[in-house]
Amino acid sequence: MNFIEDLIQLIKEKKSVVSMGLDPRMDNEGEIPQYLIEELKEPNKIITEFNKILIENTYELIPVVKPQIAFYEKYEALGALKETIKFAHKNDLLVILDAKRNDIGSTSEAYAYSLFKNFKADACTINGYLGFDGVKPFLDYKEKGVFILVKTSNPSSKEFQDIFSIKLENISQEITQFEVKAQILKRNYLQMAELIYKWSNDLQKFSNFTNIGAVVGATYPQELKKIREVVINSFILIPGYGAQGAQAKDIKHGFYKNGLGGLVNSSRGIIFAYNKNKQYPPEEFGKAARYEIIDMNKSINAEIGI
Amino acid sequence: MNFIEDLIQLIKEKKSVVSMGLDPRMDNEGEIPQYLIEELKEPNKIITEFNKILIENTYELIPVVKPQIAFYEKYEALGALKETIKFAHKNDLLVILDAKRNDIGSTSEAYAYSLFKNFKADACTINGYLGFDGVKPFLDYKEKGVFILVKTSNPSSKEFQDIFSIKLENISQEITQFEVKAQILKRNYLQMAELIYKWSNDLQKFSNFTNIGAVVGATYPQELKKIREVVINSFILIPGYGAQGAQAKDIKHGFYKNGLGGLVNSSRGIIFAYNKNKQYPPEEFGKAARYEIIDMNKSINAEIGI
Repeated sequence: MNFIEDLIQLIKEKKSVVSMGLDPRMDNEGEIPQYLIEELKEPNKIITEFNKILIENTYELIPVVKPQIAFYEKYEALGALKETIKFAHKNDLLVILDAKRNDIGSTSEAYAYSLFKNFKADACTINGYLGFDGVKPFLDYKEKGVFILVKTSNPSSKEFQDIFSIKLENISQEITQFEVKAQILKRNYLQMAELIYKWSNDLQKFSNFTNIGAVVGATYPQELKKIREVVINSFILIPGYGAQGAQAKDIKHGFYKNGLGGLVNSSRGIIFAYNKNKQYPPEEFGKAARYEIIDMNKSINAEIGI
Repeated sequence: MNFIEDLIQLIKEKKSVVSMGLDPRMDNEGEIPQYLIEELKEPNKIITEFNKILIENTYELIPVVKPQIAFYEKYEALGALKETIKFAHKNDLLVILDAKRNDIGSTSEAYAYSLFKNFKADACTINGYLGFDGVKPFLDYKEKGVFILVKTSNPSSKEFQDIFSIKLENISQEITQFEVKAQILKRNYLQMAELIYKWSNDLQKFSNFTNIGAVVGATYPQELKKIREVVINSFILIPGYGAQGAQAKDIKHGFYKNGLGGLVNSSRGIIFAYNKNKQYPPEEFGKAARYEIIDMNKSINAEIGI
């Protein structure tokens, strides 16, 4: 397998760029249905069953699922995460493990081993703040994918990611006086996008895409447009659709004219769809998820022309 | 308990600012001794025993241990991590769980729960790239500590962290033409340091320190000096001592005149000290670690005047 090659094939076959976020939450009403919790009791069993029903109801409609590892860690249900990934693979789905890992090189190696070898994820999310030697251990798994955070979907992403910056090469620590025109300043998220372009430049390409992707929140459509122009060889994973407020029109700039280049993730909006769509009782959360995905595919495909 | 209050007390009692990094590696010679691997076979047992022997040999000489969660994930030994933390607490040690977690708010809540409630860490490391709403869920555990990455110890940390930047408030996305003098540009790591100062400003202080700390590599002494002047209410966790090449003189700028303000971590340099100090056979790795810590305390305390 090769992540990006397989991803493109699945997108074309299934005519979908939707990623279903498997973020099992069960502390509040409207999350994992109460009947499953009461019946199965143990978090690993509850979450495995919840995810399997979601996958059974939706697998032929989407190319990818994206489990968020934080929730499996919270409920001490890493066994359920493994089972879910195995079940997703059996059902013709790729798995992006959302982990946002980051560390110095020798420690990143351990994280890459954990995500790719232990959990058998096809791709993962990482944070590029530490630069290339924290990224490289993930790339050493040549057939796997990574998605590097660029502009995140949350409100306070602006605090650091939107700071204006400029790369001044060959400047000593104590820079001497000169003036820079403000127009040549770029926001930090674009600097990160340029690093991704640089890191991906020499890698093998499938339909012009490498195994290095970017993460850009659907909640920032203007930024998405600018980032698309920089990470020209990267797929963009676009979270924030649905529960976080973004709609189909907000994500279209993440895609090329051929309908490729982006994946649109919704988590709560799909997996807890039974909660807003009262046509479905909690026992039919899988059907509610299916209905939501059909609706997402229709709205998104109309925008991106797939 | 309150992390920073307890930390300061332990530093004063034990006259040590050394953190022992518990990064269990066992893929190469010179890491976890072969005799332990052959005797105990199962990673959880091997790592728990390795860490307990280290702690028994060193607990009265140091205030803190810092397990790196990546290695426990790699060897699927999270049980050993829990046991280690429990054993460290019994032996009068605080535990900083090095995890570098980061995500949007509702997911950060799950990570904070995992690190503080499941593993019972007293503090953890996090990555601030996402801004305050990814940090806040950790601060909601008011008695716990966080250390936010500022300037990391690895060679390629310069790629993003050293980019020059400037905060321009009230500037629209498409900025109009004007000039900025290059001297007012600051590198990105200083922008992160300023955010830490801002986020920590209103929190409760003990001897002027809050529960928000910073991470700055000992491999960058000049940067450490600049960051110390910005994060005035923060302890600085300083990794990179020993195996990564930094020495006692490199860390002194992380400390105030009263000897407070920093923690110096060494992982491989302490826990695999038996490997470079041939006076100790593999079976005496605990004694070798003890000897190394005594040596570190002496060298560091001479520089910082504790």
